[in-house]
Amino acid sequence: MSTEDQSWLDEIHFGENGLVPAIAQDAGSGKILMLAWMNRESLVLTVKTGEAVYWSRSRDKLWHKGEESGHTQKLIELRFDCDEDVILLKVEQKEGISCHTGRQSCFYRRLQGSKWVEVEAVLKDPKLIYE
Amino acid sequence: MSTEDQSWLDEIHFGENGLVPAIAQDAGSGKILMLAWMNRESLVLTVKTGEAVYWSRSRDKLWHKGEESGHTQKLIELRFDCDEDVILLKVEQKEGISCHTGRQSCFYRRLQGSKWVEVEAVLKDPKLIYE
Repeated sequence: MSTEDQSWLDEIHFGENGLVPAIAQDAGSGKILMLAWMNRESLVLTVKTGEAVYWSRSRDKLWHKGEESGHTQKLIELRFDCDEDVILLKVEQKEGISCHTGRQSCFYRRLQGSKWVEVEAVLKDPKLIYE
Repeated sequence: MSTEDQSWLDEIHFGENGLVPAIAQDAGSGKILMLAWMNRESLVLTVKTGEAVYWSRSRDKLWHKGEESGHTQKLIELRFDCDEDVILLKVEQKEGISCHTGRQSCFYRRLQGSKWVEVEAVLKDPKLIYE
C-alpha cells in the first residue's frame, strides 16, 4: 500500500483527542480479536509497515502490537466505516494470541444471566509471554 | 438475561463521557456490522429488551437501533473485553442491513493503494429505508 498520497488519511475524522477506535479482526475466521486506538501517525505506520501499530492511551505513546509479546498482527485489509471515524483491520495474528491474558481474543467473557463467564481458553501462560 | 442483579454492569469502565464503544457483529457470519456507543442505560435496555440500544452522540439521546429504519438488531450474545471498556454484541440483523447507506455493514470501504474503494453492495435504496 502506498503512503505517499495521504488524501485517504484526510478522510478519517479523528476525535478531539486525535484518536479513532480500531477493531482488529482475524482475517481467516472473522473472530474479533481486540479493540485499540489509533492516531494519525499509528495509522500511517500500520499501512507503511504492514503490521498493526496502535496508540496506547495508558502509556501515552505509539504501540507496535507485539513489541513485547511477539504477538504481532500482519495487516491483510484495512477498512473504515460510513461515519469515517472507526477503523477495521483484518489481520493475521501471530501465534493466534492477541490478548495479554494469553487468549486468542480479548473478548473472552460472555454475559450469562447476570454473570460474566470466561468462555475462551488460555493458550499460553502470560508469565511465559512477558518473561 | 436477568437485569435485577446489576453487578455485571459495575464491572464495565465507562469513559469520562459515560460511554463505551460497542461493536455489533453478525452472529451467523461473523461479519462486523458497525460500531456505536453505549452508556449504562443503553446497555441495561439492550439486555432487558433483547434488542440493541445505543447512545447517539450526534443526537445526544438513546437510540433504539432500527427505530426509524426497521433494521433492529436482536441480541444473541454479549461480551466485554479484558480491559472492561469495550462491548461486543453478537446480533441477528433484521433485513441484513445495518448501515444507513443500505448496506449490510458500515465498513464497506477498503483501502486499495491510496484510495478507499467501495466493496459492498447497496442492498436497499436509503430513500426507501427512511421514507
